[in-house]
Amino acid sequence: MTPGAMLRELRRGKPLIHQITNYVVMNETANVTLAIGALPVMAHALEEVEEMASHAGALVLNIGTLSQDWVDAMVLAGKAANWTGAPVVLDPVGVGATSLRTDSARHILDEVEIAVVRGNPAETAALAGIQAEIRGVESLGAAAEGAELARGAARALGTTVSVTGATDFVSDGERTLAVENGDALLAAITGSGCMSSTMTGCFLAVERSVDAAAAALAAFGVAGEEAARDAKGPGTFHVNLYDALYNLTPEGLDERARIANA
Amino acid sequence: MTPGAMLRELRRGKPLIHQITNYVVMNETANVTLAIGALPVMAHALEEVEEMASHAGALVLNIGTLSQDWVDAMVLAGKAANWTGAPVVLDPVGVGATSLRTDSARHILDEVEIAVVRGNPAETAALAGIQAEIRGVESLGAAAEGAELARGAARALGTTVSVTGATDFVSDGERTLAVENGDALLAAITGSGCMSSTMTGCFLAVERSVDAAAAALAAFGVAGEEAARDAKGPGTFHVNLYDALYNLTPEGLDERARIANA
Amino acid sequence: MTPGAMLRELRRGKPLIHQITNYVVMNETANVTLAIGALPVMAHALEEVEEMASHAGALVLNIGTLSQDWVDAMVLAGKAANWTGAPVVLDPVGVGATSLRTDSARHILDEVEIAVVRGNPAETAALAGIQAEIRGVESLGAAAEGAELARGAARALGTTVSVTGATDFVSDGERTLAVENGDALLAAITGSGCMSSTMTGCFLAVERSVDAAAAALAAFGVAGEEAARDAKGPGTFHVNLYDALYNLTPEGLDERARIANA
Repeated sequence: MTPGAMLRELRRGKPLIHQITNYVVMNETANVTLAIGALPVMAHALEEVEEMASHAGALVLNIGTLSQDWVDAMVLAGKAANWTGAPVVLDPVGVGATSLRTDSARHILDEVEIAVVRGNPAETAALAGIQAEIRGVESLGAAAEGAELARGAARALGTTVSVTGATDFVSDGERTLAVENGDALLAAITGSGCMSSTMTGCFLAVERSVDAAAAALAAFGVAGEEAARDAKGPGTFHVNLYDALYNLTPEGLDERARIANA
Repeated sequence: MTPGAMLRELRRGKPLIHQITNYVVMNETANVTLAIGALPVMAHALEEVEEMASHAGALVLNIGTLSQDWVDAMVLAGKAANWTGAPVVLDPVGVGATSLRTDSARHILDEVEIAVVRGNPAETAALAGIQAEIRGVESLGAAAEGAELARGAARALGTTVSVTGATDFVSDGERTLAVENGDALLAAITGSGCMSSTMTGCFLAVERSVDAAAAALAAFGVAGEEAARDAKGPGTFHVNLYDALYNLTPEGLDERARIANA
Repeated sequence: MTPGAMLRELRRGKPLIHQITNYVVMNETANVTLAIGALPVMAHALEEVEEMASHAGALVLNIGTLSQDWVDAMVLAGKAANWTGAPVVLDPVGVGATSLRTDSARHILDEVEIAVVRGNPAETAALAGIQAEIRGVESLGAAAEGAELARGAARALGTTVSVTGATDFVSDGERTLAVENGDALLAAITGSGCMSSTMTGCFLAVERSVDAAAAALAAFGVAGEEAARDAKGPGTFHVNLYDALYNLTPEGLDERARIANA
């Protein structure tokens, strides 16, 4: 399927996207889910996550504001999603910054079959244990390095990995795609990474593939480009982003998506 | 009192609206409370909810992101509000989706005297135990069915019930009102249902009646209509909604409110 | 340093601002941090707050939605920040409204060396135990009273105190500054006080002084003035506020900051 065909299918099927995510971005990722055309549900209680996840088309786990019982809930929900076959996306927010985050993300990876890990270069490198080979992860811009990181992390973790930045890279360890859409203002609002993980969940609910993970990032990036057009700063950009996701057409996405082999 | 007279009184008295609500919409419902002219306070700790609720003009309980200690806090706060006579609004988010939610909402209804339950058709039907009689609750559009659901749920639950959708219905089991205000974009942002529960709390703080519950939904709907006028999508609509609530006048509300017997 | 020079330094150094804050405003204070040019991180788990705080340029503690384990985390994080020398800002949201809040804020002040307390007049007076001398704190407008409150609270608490309102006052008990920037619409959005505490943390990370605390409030106030220019209500004002913080220049800040001895 093309990115546009996936978007058309997403809007037709309106999959339920169960998200156990951080307090900072819950509203934002729920609104992204609605704007692109899926249905969000946020639920974290141990008593209900399995039941909720079993209704879902995809599950997004995000460790941005972590505590132990939330990690336990993520594992329970993840196992339930594995059981029904719903793809699970993991956003390892802040891995490398504290050992709680690194340990928690690895624990989730051990217990749950993750379809896609979506992180920034520093988080991805730390999670995959290859940070020693990476220098200056924050400024990592060269395509060769980003593609290499995505490929190496995918092999190390045994899952598809999306590394987002100025250029995004998606790899399953064999095939690696580069996505060139986006705008610098995405880095000026909190939660843009988390939103791209949610987008990944939405598209994975349609098709479980490297192409769907890349299409999600292209769709988010195209919306970011559109949102930046008459933004006066991060406030108006943020507002425009929801409008742009909502108004994104399958045809427009296919036309503007810049996805290539890397 | 007319809806406009209630709004005038609300802005004069600036009641404190204590809300124990879900993480996704806390900021949004606090901003709705301020925009319409009341004062929000969010507090959920078991150690303080009774004290806080005892200062409040109304209490709004919303189970959108549930955990056991929050339910305990809701019951404590609810009993305190019952003691002082402040009306309590219950938003049974997601009832029917998991048994934790259904059980928790019923537990709150057992322990606390609820002035108004505000839900969508599916939640209301599940809570009242009459889902067996409802088919296709999501597409439930005919006035007769919506009015019947509100009336039946009000009788089953022994409280006033507001069922919101394309048309909203408010019933105490005897008298049933239909509210025809609103815009389709309300369904494209997360928390619009939660916001309408908060609006219900604000208006109930002025007058505890079926009319006040309907006036709250009319005020929210009129603001939604205004917000949609030059919205380009859910982002700009969401922003405009706060402006429209803030700029809503008592005269404008009386003129545009479409409330009728159902 | 002038306020503008502090802003320039802040954008150059991009300090990490660790915030343990309330659920209502987390997204908003993170976005304010990014818009002004620093980096936000939200983390509250007991297992990681010390490690996270030890990386931070400043720590902001906000008790807006309180529970006991969050207070414990605030104390742990505060001690870690004290150890590394990072300034700690305390926002005593709702102190005076419930004893849990008053006791918790005092407990944090006992255990942690606080650089600045930032509150509204009622909270500040209650925290400093001087409410008996204050009448009508909500309408407290006269410069003499506001300055006196800030000075008295600073002496009573042994820390710098920022009291925000129509005019803001900052005092370390000896020197007292008045800041005349701002707009009435700041009171129409939730979290504007919390945002000003975050701004205080950002500027304190550059320079630990009464001047920096005042510069933070001036920068926030100037952005508020700019945001109000073509706002149609609290919705558009809120959006414009992020744009204005992002577009604020060091020169513009120095030109428009209205800081004077009080």
